[in-house]
Amino acid sequence: MAVKVRARAYSSSANLGPGFDTLGIALDAFFDEVTVWENSNGKVVVEEIAGPYSGLVRRKGNTAERAVREFLLMTGQQGIGVSMRIWKGVPPGRGLGSSGASAAAAVRAVAGLLEMEDIPASLLVMAAGLGESESSGNPHYDNVAASILGGLAVVSVFREEVFVERLDVEAFFAVGVPFVSVPENKTGAMRRVLPESISFQEHVANSQRLAMLITGLVNRDYRLAGRAMDDLIVTPRRSVFIPCYEELKKAAFDSGGLGFTISGAGPSVIALAESGQEAAEIAKGFSEVYSECGIRHLSTTAKPAPGAFIV
Amino acid sequence: MAVKVRARAYSSSANLGPGFDTLGIALDAFFDEVTVWENSNGKVVVEEIAGPYSGLVRRKGNTAERAVREFLLMTGQQGIGVSMRIWKGVPPGRGLGSSGASAAAAVRAVAGLLEMEDIPASLLVMAAGLGESESSGNPHYDNVAASILGGLAVVSVFREEVFVERLDVEAFFAVGVPFVSVPENKTGAMRRVLPESISFQEHVANSQRLAMLITGLVNRDYRLAGRAMDDLIVTPRRSVFIPCYEELKKAAFDSGGLGFTISGAGPSVIALAESGQEAAEIAKGFSEVYSECGIRHLSTTAKPAPGAFIV
Repeated sequence: MAVKVRARAYSSSANLGPGFDTLGIALDAFFDEVTVWENSNGKVVVEEIAGPYSGLVRRKGNTAERAVREFLLMTGQQGIGVSMRIWKGVPPGRGLGSSGASAAAAVRAVAGLLEMEDIPASLLVMAAGLGESESSGNPHYDNVAASILGGLAVVSVFREEVFVERLDVEAFFAVGVPFVSVPENKTGAMRRVLPESISFQEHVANSQRLAMLITGLVNRDYRLAGRAMDDLIVTPRRSVFIPCYEELKKAAFDSGGLGFTISGAGPSVIALAESGQEAAEIAKGFSEVYSECGIRHLSTTAKPAPGAFIV
Repeated sequence: MAVKVRARAYSSSANLGPGFDTLGIALDAFFDEVTVWENSNGKVVVEEIAGPYSGLVRRKGNTAERAVREFLLMTGQQGIGVSMRIWKGVPPGRGLGSSGASAAAAVRAVAGLLEMEDIPASLLVMAAGLGESESSGNPHYDNVAASILGGLAVVSVFREEVFVERLDVEAFFAVGVPFVSVPENKTGAMRRVLPESISFQEHVANSQRLAMLITGLVNRDYRLAGRAMDDLIVTPRRSVFIPCYEELKKAAFDSGGLGFTISGAGPSVIALAESGQEAAEIAKGFSEVYSECGIRHLSTTAKPAPGAFIV
C-alpha cells in the first residue's frame, strides 16, 4: 500500500489595500487539504476532488497539478508519478486565494511525501506560484506565500527571483463573500483596470500607507493599520466592480471596523477589527448588506492562520 | 535663576532607499543638544550656538527656533518666551538630518521645560517637521520622526495629519560623509530631479522593496533588508549628483556590505552591514574612496539611536 501524505493550507487575502503583489495574509476561515501518494505511471494526476466547493474546480489542469509538476521540475524529480486527492474548502473565484491554497497544500504534501521537509519556503512558494498562474494567467506570489508561510507574508521579486518573509501578526478580520458570477479570468480582468502609470505623489502616499500598514500590524496599532488599508491606487479602480462595495464599507465602519478593502481581486471584501467580537459584528453587517442587495453570500470572521502543514 | 532643560537628539538617515518621505532611522553617530529656558521678553530666540559645526548654521531663523514657535502655537502657549543654546554635533547639509536633530532636541527640551512630557510624539514630530521646513523648503517628517522616536521611524500623512510609528530594530551601518559644497537649498534641488510620474510596474517593484526592507529589519534578515535598499525610483535620479557614488557602492559591497544607498538627499551615503566589525570595514573602504577622489571626508559606523531625551 502506497504511503499517503496529507497537507492543509488556509485561505488568504492579498493586498490588504496598498500591498498589491506584495502582501498576503493567511486566514483561518477556510482551508483546502491535498492528499498525495506515488503512482507507477509517472504522471501527476488529480484523482479526485471532494469537499463543499469540489463542483466549482476542474480536475484536469488544476493548480495543484501544475504546482506539483513545477515542484518536481525544480527539484530534479520529474520522473516521479504523483496522484492527488483534493478536499476543497476554500470557495473558488472569490479573492480568497482558493487556487493558491490548493497549490500550497499540494507542494507541502509532495515535499513531505519525498521527505524534503527542509526545503526553503521560497522554493515552495515559487512552485506553488507558478502552479497558481494556471488559474490567474500570470504568476503572483502573495496568496501562495501567505498559504505556505502563514501569518502576514511579504513578497518581493528581485530579478525574477522570489523572496518571501513572514511576519507574526495578531489581528481580527471580517470577510464578506458574495456568490455572484465573475468573469472567467477574473484576476486577469481585474489587472486590466490598473493604470499604466501613476503620479509620483500617489506613489509616495501609497508607500507611506503600505509601510504604516505593516508597522501598525507589527506594533498592534490596529487603528493606524486600519487607516493605512485605504489604498489610493488599485482599490478605487476595482471597487466599482465589487457588488455593494460602498454599502459594505459603510457597514464595516458603522460596526466599529478600523479598515476596509477588497480581498485580492474580489469580489470578497475584508475589514480589520480590534477584537473577535467586533469582527463578528462587522460580519453580521456584511450579511445584512448582501441580503438587502439580494446577493447570496457568506460572511465570517477570520484570524491569521498558520502556514501549510502536514496533517 | 531660570530653570534650564537640555535635550539630546541624534542624527538620522531618511529613505534607506525605497522609503522616500516614509522611513527614517536614528543613527548614534552624531547628536545635537538644545538647552532651553524661559525668558521675560516673550520671544523665541537662539542665544548661542556651540559645538563642532556651530559655524555652519545660522542663529536667526534656525530650525530649532521655528520648531519651538510651532510647538508653542500648537499647544496654545505662544506668549511664552524661550531662549535656547544649541550644541551642534550633527554635520549640516550632509543628508544626516542635521536640521531635524536641532528641531527634535528643541521641541523635546521645551516640552520638558513646560512639563508636558506626556504630549503625543506625533505632535512633537509635526512641530519639529514644520520647523525643519525652514531649512528644506517643504515639511517632510522622516528625519524629525527618527530623531524624536529613535529606532526606525515610519511616517504617514493622511489628509494633512501626520502619523508616526517606531519599530525597534537592531542593525549596523557605515556612513560616508563628504565635505563637498552643496546647493543652497539642497533638499529642494534634489526634489526637483524626481519624476512627475512613474510606471505602475515601477511602483509595485519599489513597494515590494519597501515592504521587504521593513520586514527584513524587523525579522533581522539583514541580507534581504540590504537587497531591498536597492530603490529603483528616487536613488538612480539622485546618485549622479553624489560624489564618487559608484566607487563608494563598489567599496561597500566589496567590504561585505549588504545594502547601499544615499543618506537622505545626500551627499552622504549609507551601507547596511551584518556586524559592527563589517560596518567598520566598510567605513574604512569609504575613506579610501574619498581620499582617492580628493574629497575631505568623515567615515564612521552607526547603530540605531534612541529617541530625543532630556539629558
